[in-house]
Amino acid sequence: MIINGQEHRSVSFKDGKVLLINQNKLPHTFEITACESYQQVAAAIHDMTVRGAPAIGAAGAYGMVLAAMSASDQNFSKDMEIALAFLLASRPTAVDLKNALHQVHADIISCLPDINKAKEIALVSAERFTDASAEDCRLIGEVGQELIKDEMNILTHCNAGALATVDWGTALAVLRMAHRKGKKFFVYVDETRPRLQGARLTAFELQQEGISHAIITDSMAGHFMQQDRIDLVITGADRICLNGDFANKIGTYSLAVLAKAHNIPFYVAAPQSTFDLNCEKGNDIQIEERSVEEITHLNGKLIANPGSTAFNPAFDVTPGAFVTGFITCKGTINPSDIRVLNPSME
Amino acid sequence: MIINGQEHRSVSFKDGKVLLINQNKLPHTFEITACESYQQVAAAIHDMTVRGAPAIGAAGAYGMVLAAMSASDQNFSKDMEIALAFLLASRPTAVDLKNALHQVHADIISCLPDINKAKEIALVSAERFTDASAEDCRLIGEVGQELIKDEMNILTHCNAGALATVDWGTALAVLRMAHRKGKKFFVYVDETRPRLQGARLTAFELQQEGISHAIITDSMAGHFMQQDRIDLVITGADRICLNGDFANKIGTYSLAVLAKAHNIPFYVAAPQSTFDLNCEKGNDIQIEERSVEEITHLNGKLIANPGSTAFNPAFDVTPGAFVTGFITCKGTINPSDIRVLNPSME
Repeated sequence: MIINGQEHRSVSFKDGKVLLINQNKLPHTFEITACESYQQVAAAIHDMTVRGAPAIGAAGAYGMVLAAMSASDQNFSKDMEIALAFLLASRPTAVDLKNALHQVHADIISCLPDINKAKEIALVSAERFTDASAEDCRLIGEVGQELIKDEMNILTHCNAGALATVDWGTALAVLRMAHRKGKKFFVYVDETRPRLQGARLTAFELQQEGISHAIITDSMAGHFMQQDRIDLVITGADRICLNGDFANKIGTYSLAVLAKAHNIPFYVAAPQSTFDLNCEKGNDIQIEERSVEEITHLNGKLIANPGSTAFNPAFDVTPGAFVTGFITCKGTINPSDIRVLNPSME
Repeated sequence: MIINGQEHRSVSFKDGKVLLINQNKLPHTFEITACESYQQVAAAIHDMTVRGAPAIGAAGAYGMVLAAMSASDQNFSKDMEIALAFLLASRPTAVDLKNALHQVHADIISCLPDINKAKEIALVSAERFTDASAEDCRLIGEVGQELIKDEMNILTHCNAGALATVDWGTALAVLRMAHRKGKKFFVYVDETRPRLQGARLTAFELQQEGISHAIITDSMAGHFMQQDRIDLVITGADRICLNGDFANKIGTYSLAVLAKAHNIPFYVAAPQSTFDLNCEKGNDIQIEERSVEEITHLNGKLIANPGSTAFNPAFDVTPGAFVTGFITCKGTINPSDIRVLNPSME
């Protein structure tokens, strides 16, 4: 992605460090956070310095590289298992992290007992995951841009952009590619409380790309649908089950219900790493509950009634029946056809 | 309402001043703002120092008293007309303001040419509106509390509390009265972006009253409905049309669609002053568009991408078909029966 005229990836590896665009500081400050241990990577995933299902997959993959570099020769296998569990625990809902970690871990273990080769292959495996994820997202853009017509008004939620996915984005890959092909459209950006990924990150990416947009509060989506001002909804996903149910940022389910009530097509764009063929249905997905302070405070300042508590589920689950189509690198597919995807992850 | 152990009204009149609980400073600071001119009252309505349809009606009524006190003897009628227009322009959507202003204005004009009597009657008329509004809301509580059962989970949006209505509240009058009758229930409080009236004011009122509650982001309502954790939705209103369509805080329409999709009863509580028998249908309601900075900034600090704009409709319109019943001082009525209400305002 282009930021201030320069090409960037949200997650990369250089000189023995995992480099993350700090998404908590954007858009006010553009800063690269360097992690020198897998524990630092896990902390950065947990505190959302890096966020977005595919991006935390890539961060986790590189975290395994740091783990392999620092593992003891005597307890290499055990150390790798500990690192795997530690990184896996950093966030529970997005499956990309699990998929990436298991892939890199399996590649490392396959080299044993040659520890030097295992350390070498760790980086190769992580780079392969990351490059594949970026290319997958580019293809999502190619596939999905065909849905975008001139004069369309498109609603998106949270940040399903290049920041969330190494490069290109998922929902935003579609918009980015359509824009580069010269299509003229307008994007309604849900601000996405509590962490404002829409207002901060999606708006930032769209502005960098020169795409017309306006921020709205999450509560306005229904109103604009009612006024015939939304033609299409596109979101990303954090985990997609076999039956088409999927987890995504809290508020996605409400949007899907509203879109259906207004006969507005609802698309979900996702790379192969977001499909979880081991997960039959949405009920099986663990929903992360984050801290109350994310609701009651903003930038460290109390914004709610001091004596009140809050609930903070970070995701919700939308049944596949609400999805018009999943935009994937292999084409746009029906919720009922996920079984035939057979993603390369599996 | 009880605040810190003392009885208060959100709007009152004392020693030639209109006294307003400053709702922009709550819950962090409890402060009474004193207005000494009708222009100050209009400014306080516009900047939401006082907010809530019935409360701005009462503030407007007292504003007319200040206008009558300061009007010139030579141009009394003309001055009153100017004041009426000025106060009317402070906020366009809630009909209570219009109803209150026209009522006090008519009472004043009916005394002419006796200007002294007109000035006297202004206060009598404003007090009558304010007392009637408070009593109306108390009755709403009596009527509505019958809907509340033990163990219920109730969702409310924005602040339809005592702060919004001189005293008691509308939606919150129902909860306040049910609580005082010993019923045990739980309230989900939509934070209500952009101005957080739920997180700040409703949570504050519920806490003062000792009612169990938790704040959620507006985007979570659908998720909790999907999980069968909401049994009932109650909101207030800013203007109710003859056909049952009503305007209320942005996000209400989304809630109504979600409630219908989950077969959850959706009630609207409102005093007589909120019914607009001159308004046939929702399309005729003017929706106030407020400043972009309410979305992009919080407490004066930029929270969104600096280069991005925002849309900020302050209200939306929900069709009557989504309303299970209107809770009024005269009983709970069907959306199709509003014509028979014949509110005292008319």
